[in-house]
Amino acid sequence: MPEGPKPVRIGLLGHGNVGAAFADLLAERADAVQAATGRRPEISGVLTRTEGDFGEILERSDLIVELMGGTDPARQFVIDAMRAGRPVVTANKQLLAQHGDELFGVAREAGVQLRFEAAVAAVIPIVRTIQESFGVTEISKVFGIVNGTTNFILSEMAASGAGYEDVLAQAQELGYAEADPSDDVSGADAAAKMAILARLAFHTPVTLDEVSYQGIEAIQPDDLAYAKELGLSLKLLGVAERRDGGISVRVFPCFLYSGHPLAPIEGPFNAVMVEAPAINEVTMSGPGAGGLQTASAVLGDVVSILAGDAPVHETREVLPIVADVISSFYLYLEVADRPGVLARVATVLGDHEVSVKSVVQRGIGDDARLVMVVHECLESRFAAAVEALGALGDLRAPARSIHVIEEQF
Amino acid sequence: MPEGPKPVRIGLLGHGNVGAAFADLLAERADAVQAATGRRPEISGVLTRTEGDFGEILERSDLIVELMGGTDPARQFVIDAMRAGRPVVTANKQLLAQHGDELFGVAREAGVQLRFEAAVAAVIPIVRTIQESFGVTEISKVFGIVNGTTNFILSEMAASGAGYEDVLAQAQELGYAEADPSDDVSGADAAAKMAILARLAFHTPVTLDEVSYQGIEAIQPDDLAYAKELGLSLKLLGVAERRDGGISVRVFPCFLYSGHPLAPIEGPFNAVMVEAPAINEVTMSGPGAGGLQTASAVLGDVVSILAGDAPVHETREVLPIVADVISSFYLYLEVADRPGVLARVATVLGDHEVSVKSVVQRGIGDDARLVMVVHECLESRFAAAVEALGALGDLRAPARSIHVIEEQF
Repeated sequence: MPEGPKPVRIGLLGHGNVGAAFADLLAERADAVQAATGRRPEISGVLTRTEGDFGEILERSDLIVELMGGTDPARQFVIDAMRAGRPVVTANKQLLAQHGDELFGVAREAGVQLRFEAAVAAVIPIVRTIQESFGVTEISKVFGIVNGTTNFILSEMAASGAGYEDVLAQAQELGYAEADPSDDVSGADAAAKMAILARLAFHTPVTLDEVSYQGIEAIQPDDLAYAKELGLSLKLLGVAERRDGGISVRVFPCFLYSGHPLAPIEGPFNAVMVEAPAINEVTMSGPGAGGLQTASAVLGDVVSILAGDAPVHETREVLPIVADVISSFYLYLEVADRPGVLARVATVLGDHEVSVKSVVQRGIGDDARLVMVVHECLESRFAAAVEALGALGDLRAPARSIHVIEEQF
Repeated sequence: MPEGPKPVRIGLLGHGNVGAAFADLLAERADAVQAATGRRPEISGVLTRTEGDFGEILERSDLIVELMGGTDPARQFVIDAMRAGRPVVTANKQLLAQHGDELFGVAREAGVQLRFEAAVAAVIPIVRTIQESFGVTEISKVFGIVNGTTNFILSEMAASGAGYEDVLAQAQELGYAEADPSDDVSGADAAAKMAILARLAFHTPVTLDEVSYQGIEAIQPDDLAYAKELGLSLKLLGVAERRDGGISVRVFPCFLYSGHPLAPIEGPFNAVMVEAPAINEVTMSGPGAGGLQTASAVLGDVVSILAGDAPVHETREVLPIVADVISSFYLYLEVADRPGVLARVATVLGDHEVSVKSVVQRGIGDDARLVMVVHECLESRFAAAVEALGALGDLRAPARSIHVIEEQF
């Protein structure tokens, strides 16, 4: 065993899939960590659901790695660790999205580091890139695919034509979706990640309840079939951007034209784009999950702390959240097959200053449908137009709408 | 003007395109730098070809930014600055590729930082990602498109069917290629970048003369037309990888199948992939050049130094360079239109254990051609087969060959 200074003692909270992978990876790369930082890491204690005592583990640790998930008791453990002067590395997105202000405040007061690369996009180093490479860049927009489960489901639905329920079952079989997939498919998981990214990019406190989100449960195979005709592919997109002196943070299913850099991202992958005048755009993609990949990101954070990298300053602005933003939309209407329907629909849209870009009319009788893409307009105006369409009495089912990124790259 | 501690004085060497953009960006982002690092930056002196004295500028600077390019006198200035205890940020790839050992040695001895994100892929944070996020990861391969000029030329040739000379002239008009484009189109620029990336990824000294490189000057519109038929797109690829206990670092034009993550990278963009068992693969892409983009990467390095990020340890292995590696190839033969040619060509390939994957035979008389893709084999064996084909007397012109990445993603 190589000689050296005292080893650094790592207390590990949680020993599930990621926790176990981290313990293995740390043992395997201990020599490399020592070579890179001058200190050899060792696990000084493991807290599981049934074994270990947090106080005792904290006592004999120099650094805490929190991989237990959930906010309770993780929140209290992370706070206690930082107050006791221990830097913390966590992969816990809900913890940061819900209690970020409190946790970053404690880290500042205690003068210790809180690192969390693995909480956002596993092995894609988006947190470090925004905090360090672009730390003084005026970022205008951070957006992308930050949930691998839903991207797998949408890719499969588009490729096979199968329905949401069938593809979800397949994703569960392959281990890409949990037994209870609601956090992923509802958009809640992506919303937590976007709250974290928005905080970093705009140096402004963003809480989870300021992120509006929408999931993929309502997507129909029909939508994907029509979209293919219109040259579009569907992604669950997270977007955090500057708008009208404030910021907007949202998660929603969205159609992209085929030239868009995110359009070719298929399967359980993540991809994040950062836009700023000084950098144009940078895209980063990779596997969005996986125990070993997440553990690898955690190890990168541990190494940064051991190497003595400076904690990242949080320069604080407080930007307002802008709720009503501009977007283009796909609109799917099951209409009654009678004269004048298209004219009445078009009139309602025109009255709300919603302008149609392309339209497909298909089917007859009980199968008649109008599928269109409208140009960019305020979301509130589009919503009012959809409500007015419902009042016409010409629709056989509630209208379905999906965002579209109109710009062609 | 905000109060604070003493400003940090930055000596700027070079005031061309990138240097001027850096000075502007620094002034524009001075508040943000101060908020992020606690110190306000100011330019304390600028050295141009005709004005300024290096010794005087060094004397009144806390940090040196080298953007003059070339190795002489840049090498001596960077060494002198570090010996005088000043950290250095540079965007000079030739300097690092040719004198890396010496410069990193001086940085270690002097205990100062030498940072160089902008030297490899402008605003794509590949240096930081390899050094910090994946600093203790056993990387197996780093590869990608690291020259925007050649990627623009190849994209245009494929899209328009125009010849190399015409597209080069167009690239020069648009500012994507220099008046003297030889460094870019010969592959020398990409080779310098790959030498730097290989050093970082494998913690091993790699000198520029250990990188074998080939440019794009010999690419014919015909090759691109046939490639389209075979489902391939052409990129100038830099590859640094572990092979047979050593490493191989090469730059060469290469066909990719359409599912490959690098296939959709078009125009003056760069993209780099990192592969490792623990991370699977991460891809990063963005504009490969531009004064403001390069300046932005330089500023990121300056901020890291001011923030007090630890210098990156170089853990040193000395891995041998492996010259003869395995590859698949595209082979273009202008053949005499007489009986038995295909049989003789196939026999020569078979004798050299080169196995044909697909073949297109086209044209008659003076226009007869055989175009094929062969399966993976040792480069030396393929080269011997090509030499033997030349000796047959059946070729009307020397054989042309181009690498192919065979794996389908």
